[in-house]
Amino acid sequence: MKALLYYGPRDIRCETFADPGLRDPGDIIVRMEKSGICGSDLHIYHGQGFSPDLGYCVGHEAVGEVVEVGAAASRRKPGDNVMISAAVGCARCRACLGGHVARCENGQAGCYGLGHALEGCQAEAIRVPHGDFNTALIPEGLSADQALMLTDNLPTAYYGCLNAEIHPGGTVAVVGLGPIGLMAVECAFVLGASRVFALDLVPERRARAAAMGAIALDPASAAAEMREATRGRMADSVVEAVGADATIAVGLQIAGVGGTVSAIGVNLTPDFKFHMGLAFSKNLTFRIGGCSVQCHWPELVPLIREGRLHPERVISHQMPLSEGESAYRMFDARADGALKMVLTA
Amino acid sequence: MKALLYYGPRDIRCETFADPGLRDPGDIIVRMEKSGICGSDLHIYHGQGFSPDLGYCVGHEAVGEVVEVGAAASRRKPGDNVMISAAVGCARCRACLGGHVARCENGQAGCYGLGHALEGCQAEAIRVPHGDFNTALIPEGLSADQALMLTDNLPTAYYGCLNAEIHPGGTVAVVGLGPIGLMAVECAFVLGASRVFALDLVPERRARAAAMGAIALDPASAAAEMREATRGRMADSVVEAVGADATIAVGLQIAGVGGTVSAIGVNLTPDFKFHMGLAFSKNLTFRIGGCSVQCHWPELVPLIREGRLHPERVISHQMPLSEGESAYRMFDARADGALKMVLTA
Amino acid sequence: MKALLYYGPRDIRCETFADPGLRDPGDIIVRMEKSGICGSDLHIYHGQGFSPDLGYCVGHEAVGEVVEVGAAASRRKPGDNVMISAAVGCARCRACLGGHVARCENGQAGCYGLGHALEGCQAEAIRVPHGDFNTALIPEGLSADQALMLTDNLPTAYYGCLNAEIHPGGTVAVVGLGPIGLMAVECAFVLGASRVFALDLVPERRARAAAMGAIALDPASAAAEMREATRGRMADSVVEAVGADATIAVGLQIAGVGGTVSAIGVNLTPDFKFHMGLAFSKNLTFRIGGCSVQCHWPELVPLIREGRLHPERVISHQMPLSEGESAYRMFDARADGALKMVLTA
Amino acid sequence: MKALLYYGPRDIRCETFADPGLRDPGDIIVRMEKSGICGSDLHIYHGQGFSPDLGYCVGHEAVGEVVEVGAAASRRKPGDNVMISAAVGCARCRACLGGHVARCENGQAGCYGLGHALEGCQAEAIRVPHGDFNTALIPEGLSADQALMLTDNLPTAYYGCLNAEIHPGGTVAVVGLGPIGLMAVECAFVLGASRVFALDLVPERRARAAAMGAIALDPASAAAEMREATRGRMADSVVEAVGADATIAVGLQIAGVGGTVSAIGVNLTPDFKFHMGLAFSKNLTFRIGGCSVQCHWPELVPLIREGRLHPERVISHQMPLSEGESAYRMFDARADGALKMVLTA
Repeated sequence: MKALLYYGPRDIRCETFADPGLRDPGDIIVRMEKSGICGSDLHIYHGQGFSPDLGYCVGHEAVGEVVEVGAAASRRKPGDNVMISAAVGCARCRACLGGHVARCENGQAGCYGLGHALEGCQAEAIRVPHGDFNTALIPEGLSADQALMLTDNLPTAYYGCLNAEIHPGGTVAVVGLGPIGLMAVECAFVLGASRVFALDLVPERRARAAAMGAIALDPASAAAEMREATRGRMADSVVEAVGADATIAVGLQIAGVGGTVSAIGVNLTPDFKFHMGLAFSKNLTFRIGGCSVQCHWPELVPLIREGRLHPERVISHQMPLSEGESAYRMFDARADGALKMVLTA
Repeated sequence: MKALLYYGPRDIRCETFADPGLRDPGDIIVRMEKSGICGSDLHIYHGQGFSPDLGYCVGHEAVGEVVEVGAAASRRKPGDNVMISAAVGCARCRACLGGHVARCENGQAGCYGLGHALEGCQAEAIRVPHGDFNTALIPEGLSADQALMLTDNLPTAYYGCLNAEIHPGGTVAVVGLGPIGLMAVECAFVLGASRVFALDLVPERRARAAAMGAIALDPASAAAEMREATRGRMADSVVEAVGADATIAVGLQIAGVGGTVSAIGVNLTPDFKFHMGLAFSKNLTFRIGGCSVQCHWPELVPLIREGRLHPERVISHQMPLSEGESAYRMFDARADGALKMVLTA
Repeated sequence: MKALLYYGPRDIRCETFADPGLRDPGDIIVRMEKSGICGSDLHIYHGQGFSPDLGYCVGHEAVGEVVEVGAAASRRKPGDNVMISAAVGCARCRACLGGHVARCENGQAGCYGLGHALEGCQAEAIRVPHGDFNTALIPEGLSADQALMLTDNLPTAYYGCLNAEIHPGGTVAVVGLGPIGLMAVECAFVLGASRVFALDLVPERRARAAAMGAIALDPASAAAEMREATRGRMADSVVEAVGADATIAVGLQIAGVGGTVSAIGVNLTPDFKFHMGLAFSKNLTFRIGGCSVQCHWPELVPLIREGRLHPERVISHQMPLSEGESAYRMFDARADGALKMVLTA
Repeated sequence: MKALLYYGPRDIRCETFADPGLRDPGDIIVRMEKSGICGSDLHIYHGQGFSPDLGYCVGHEAVGEVVEVGAAASRRKPGDNVMISAAVGCARCRACLGGHVARCENGQAGCYGLGHALEGCQAEAIRVPHGDFNTALIPEGLSADQALMLTDNLPTAYYGCLNAEIHPGGTVAVVGLGPIGLMAVECAFVLGASRVFALDLVPERRARAAAMGAIALDPASAAAEMREATRGRMADSVVEAVGADATIAVGLQIAGVGGTVSAIGVNLTPDFKFHMGLAFSKNLTFRIGGCSVQCHWPELVPLIREGRLHPERVISHQMPLSEGESAYRMFDARADGALKMVLTA
């Protein structure tokens, strides 16, 4: 089959790769229909691999059709159209049962597209471990594009908003307006925010957030403008959707008394300079961590179906898998307004 | 001064009445600018008085200007434009401090407009006990009509929705589409409902709810239609906004497994026939009680200011206090599309 | 095998019965070691059957050893010592996934011991549907008696306390001091109650509650004594652990402003006289429903292991299955201090 | 009057000081009966003053008798025995009304004992701003010592536990076993912890925690021992009760997946090295901030009264105010088992 393989910095190639086969009784094989390129895939593209492997298949967002099922995957059958959760759980450990699939205790299942341990989703076919638990039928009334956004980005945005303890009438700030940040703006309103400040360096992205009802701000002047607009109270809830040290620092700065800062970008800095005095003086809460994707489908599916969330709107480009190399290049360069790239079979 | 006085069933008259004066150090006197007629005022109009008194002033919703303040009312001064909470608290008992102002332990303060204990708000001037606690400055950016809706109806609708445990993605049903029911529809969306079923016998009211995004249903066929639309799951949250035995019974019927029914209409039936078997089989929660109006202002004010709630839209008529008798008649007869009647100074 | 079979009012006999066999791939067969007689089994004993069947096996509480497993029950194997959840779920419907196993949408699995649909647990062997989901290994450090109490009674008591919204420092009342009520007293303290009023007609049961730290009261004078002891505030949380109309009515009476009444006894009365005026004047919450047993194991197991809960202490008698007829008689007559009867293999 | 005044590092003297008088209408004057020395007073003693002032009166914990009341302090009268909240609020700003008294927006009121802005409580008489809001009558049934512990230390311990999201059945760790840490151990059990790991370098303090039911650990081996005892799951909730960088780092280390770390010691380090990768990989929540003392009295008073909390047990020494200099020396040196020092009038 064809697949996008990682060979080093800025070297992702569409090549022929071994077809996946069933390995464990819970496995299912899915023929990819659509696969997204996530912001975190760019980390790999830039050479910040999470494993020393080379030549492995990348990507962790996909929808498609089931083509083969293991003996223990009793709820799926060939022909089913499914969405695949980017979080891979075993369905039985305390973490999975407690809603922390992203921190599954039997993590040998691994994550898609970070090495040969579990090959990625940007391929014509995908092996999904514990297929019953890690996929769902594409819900009636949802398009393939909407379902694709449910495999990672939208649940991550929503989880980030929950972690930020957004409450009815609250003032929210979203730092970073990529696909996840923009969806966080939309989720913040669903969770009852009275107003949402949206910060990004890129004017086009700010314009998109403004069109969604947010108050768009340039990060350079955001703190001062927020101080005035809120009479010094700043934000009750901050969603940081980039993962950089600088954006987390901004988040801590613009949170108000009793506020909560939720970081949903991946940040692994071992010595982030956390200002305890600032946090103490504001009685802050700080949260960070990966999203347990499938745990949020029950709330998110009806919100999409009834038209309260429109995650598909962030998709800027759809290109065939065979043009995956260009897709990565465009995404990296933000060329042609690239916001969310989708690869198709 | 002029005031609307209750003399018996369908006998409310605009007459001259003694000007109110300060009685306790915490009192303030407010010159009424606008006063609403509440659905529960109709109970009195129909002769179901809450006290044996006659000739007392009715009404419990008003905004206006402070004209006199007691020695202990240090936060208000003449000239302040204020909204008056329909819930009158002492600000110091366990109930008031715990957010149950509606159940103040020092209830001698009483409720407006239910007898001579505390004269009502449909008058040119109003004595407000514990004025610091039971009023707030009309928030910047809010109109007098919006503030008026904050004195009772909107907080009641919102409280009813909180009591119904509306959650993101949830299915909601609102039974009864008077002013409070319609605002409950709007609040349900702010709280994240994916869809809201709206039940009323009157087609015009259903049309208003539909225009707000609800799925309007005739009560006669509502249960069957909801069963189909939800595949038998019915509503997660039900807000009953009438106060009749029949509407509460409908609410219990259309709630689903694990659902919550919140009754916000006043119902005092001593022997309501509660179907325990039905409730047991669905693991139901049932809540009823009066709203602690001022406790909800912190969330509601920003939601109105930012345009997420439009409570003033339910106001159908504004008439001078001197025409209060006709206003009651029209409201009672639902004449001329009467939905929410406002009396002006 | 031997089993206790129901033939009519006060006619439960220990007889030979067909051995259970695997029916569905998820089934497992458990050889009973211990089986409890629940208060609700007495309803059946008194002839209030839940089905028209006769000659079916009764009981829904058991621990034992796995002797056979179906093809799809991949987490259990012969020799495992397990506890069986009285709530039987399918593990896949929205109710099961949302923590409402007791209201499983695929309820064809049924409940143990209410008819031939699913034979009961008071037998030498038991067929358990969806055995992976509806059993757990007996946790290390727990005795068989402790595990047996986890199959129904303790989770029900705990769930009743959660439903009553017991909070730190709160005042709690428990109505009815059978095994579940006594365990509710213990759970209330674990949940932070400052004091627990314990009501029962039987002095011995009150004495047991008093020994656990509760303030034991005779129901006849309870309301007056609580009024004095709480300065009129009554209980924040009430757990009703009987299931009779009269005890629920007492519960509603002794709840205070903003209080919550949780009924955990089975009550199916179609026209319970619910005093709406009383509930309205206190802003009450009322909850009723069956317990989703296995959902509470994660919290309860460590509490037993660390010695904070001692559910085994309510066991008053252990008798062989072959003497089940006498066990029922003694339990019914409360003879010899019968509180909780356990049948052994 | 006599008062303890700060003149520089290790230079606190008992001297004659100007009697306090009413300044604002809400003020009350309290004659001190007992005043505690807090761990954070040692920061001042070590010369880490929070203001450049010298010769100011120190201390922020006291109970005593009201001797004078301002015109607007209508709820207190001379002769009242009161406890004074260490958190000074204005009772009207959004922070105070929202339960963040510690972050009062009208903070000009200041904190006791950090400079001349608001003189401290280790004096024969104390001026209390907004006396109605910042004091309470010593509750019936509580001793002066118990009330004294309610003025700061116990609410701080309890707040730290709430911030750590301690839940029934949860595993808790408390880092640092001074008075607040020991009370946090007691509070953790009230909040339902199944087990509490208690870490401190000092064997005597560990012994005290063990006597309260905790599992006492030496910090050097704590992580390894906890890993084994919890099978790698570590603590669900961590309360850090020291305020040092090292103890916060330990807290982050011993928290498990989905865990929460709550820091209640004062830590103002501007560049604490926060390990984002560690936090991300565990989906951590981190909270820090000052306690809004009086907001927790409603829950804590009944828990003390009913014997579930015994905060007075941490008091090791009671000495007259005139011997305050020795008291500070002993406390600093931990001489003679000094744990909690109380000064008496």
